[in-house]
Amino acid sequence: MTDKKYEEMYDVAIIGTGPAGLSAALNMKIRNKSMILIGNKNSSRKVNIASEVNNYLGFHKIKGKDLADNFIKHIDEMGIEIEDVRVTMAFPMGSYYSLQTSENQILNAKSIIVATGVSFGKAYENEESFLGRGVSYCATCDAPLYKGKTVAIIAATKKEEAEANFMAEVAGTVYYIPLYKGEVEVSSKIQVIKDIPKAILGGMKVETLELENQSLSVDGVFILRDSIAPAQLIPGLKVVENYIEVNRKMETNLAGCFACGDIVGRPYQYIKAAGEGNVAALSAVAYLDELEK
Amino acid sequence: MTDKKYEEMYDVAIIGTGPAGLSAALNMKIRNKSMILIGNKNSSRKVNIASEVNNYLGFHKIKGKDLADNFIKHIDEMGIEIEDVRVTMAFPMGSYYSLQTSENQILNAKSIIVATGVSFGKAYENEESFLGRGVSYCATCDAPLYKGKTVAIIAATKKEEAEANFMAEVAGTVYYIPLYKGEVEVSSKIQVIKDIPKAILGGMKVETLELENQSLSVDGVFILRDSIAPAQLIPGLKVVENYIEVNRKMETNLAGCFACGDIVGRPYQYIKAAGEGNVAALSAVAYLDELEK
Repeated sequence: MTDKKYEEMYDVAIIGTGPAGLSAALNMKIRNKSMILIGNKNSSRKVNIASEVNNYLGFHKIKGKDLADNFIKHIDEMGIEIEDVRVTMAFPMGSYYSLQTSENQILNAKSIIVATGVSFGKAYENEESFLGRGVSYCATCDAPLYKGKTVAIIAATKKEEAEANFMAEVAGTVYYIPLYKGEVEVSSKIQVIKDIPKAILGGMKVETLELENQSLSVDGVFILRDSIAPAQLIPGLKVVENYIEVNRKMETNLAGCFACGDIVGRPYQYIKAAGEGNVAALSAVAYLDELEK
Repeated sequence: MTDKKYEEMYDVAIIGTGPAGLSAALNMKIRNKSMILIGNKNSSRKVNIASEVNNYLGFHKIKGKDLADNFIKHIDEMGIEIEDVRVTMAFPMGSYYSLQTSENQILNAKSIIVATGVSFGKAYENEESFLGRGVSYCATCDAPLYKGKTVAIIAATKKEEAEANFMAEVAGTVYYIPLYKGEVEVSSKIQVIKDIPKAILGGMKVETLELENQSLSVDGVFILRDSIAPAQLIPGLKVVENYIEVNRKMETNLAGCFACGDIVGRPYQYIKAAGEGNVAALSAVAYLDELEK
């Protein structure tokens, strides 16, 4: 990054390069706004590791990696650059926002779009290395790949019971490991196991889920965590149950601050995120146009 | 359409095959719900006629026609069928919905997703107050009421010529006012009038259709638009400024009725519509799963 970037006052800073952030960027570009787009140059890790995506309208049976490549190609062809830094804090300064980067530099923008996704909690042993090779974060997305097979679902909240039931319709055997307290109400086809996950083992693919008191032979492990990364990125930003609160225009409680994608709530779906990025960008354009009056 | 369709109780009826309806359909299919998807087999006219689309993430500089082709290819490959009928009314029946089609048949579904878009146009003067008292949106359904009488048919698209011909077999006199360009091919019994409708007049019932350059004495006025204003489509549905009111889950005020796309409000953008279709479908799935408990 050249130093010049730190002297600019951008129209918008977009934080995140998953589908939400990239979709927002397209629209800011089309509307001739100056921007800094911050995130992974290959789009989000989550898209890249998805084994197969079937519900992003227009692309059937596409690998996550290929979908991410299409996204980045689109961004490249529009002449949009991605800055691969990390934003550690964003401060509302009244009429603009100051973003502190992991390199301890400051970027300034009149508005911001937060599209950081939900960050997952502490990983289990080998979890990351088996991502896309038997470890998944979305039962709905990947269930078809486990037809007749054996899977374990590690569930942070009661909400995941519906996903487990759906999985039970498809998979051969489903082990369900609830990490929450209280009654577990799942299909009778599901084996509920009250134990603590420790590690994921295997060769090329997942073979075993190690729990504190037992080992399960499995073809897949679904880790369904709740968003535990609080959106404490921005002082004063209203967060409800770990999600940034937005209205249908993707406006947050702070003027000039918009949010979209997984960070504003479920469902965690690429096309939902992209659609929200579009709306957030057009709302930011309206905000910027109003500022200039 | 085979008659069997009319005996089914579908999990969901999706009305509309623009990006919102198609995206919803993908997700219902993935979640193993039975559905009837109703609309134009080539996706929405609006997508098809778009000259170039740059902000549907993943497709750069794509012609509307090509984007629509990608959508339909995706739907086809997933084994989803489209029924090309028109829904004239949907009635909330308590635990399910009954949809009346333009062929005067009834389709039943436990839930509905309204994705009809916004091409319904502005109502004519007094149109709403004469609804059911001489104003109708379905020629096939109400033709028997006008045996030997005089009716005017206002037609938004060429597709309505078939309805006009049917009406001519029943009614005494049929005036046909095409709002579209190009050749009009209707029965020689029909009087084609090229003029612009302005208002509907009468006492207890419709008596006159006022056009810009003339007045027609009529017993009935059939207004056949591409889609119907949402408030008229579903009795009791909450509509604000011609948009269906939804929350962030795409739930309307009616249990089991969801909405998405242009019909729920601006911005009118394909990816926003597709994202909302995804959310509406997953909310419908949750609703259906709850019903079965």
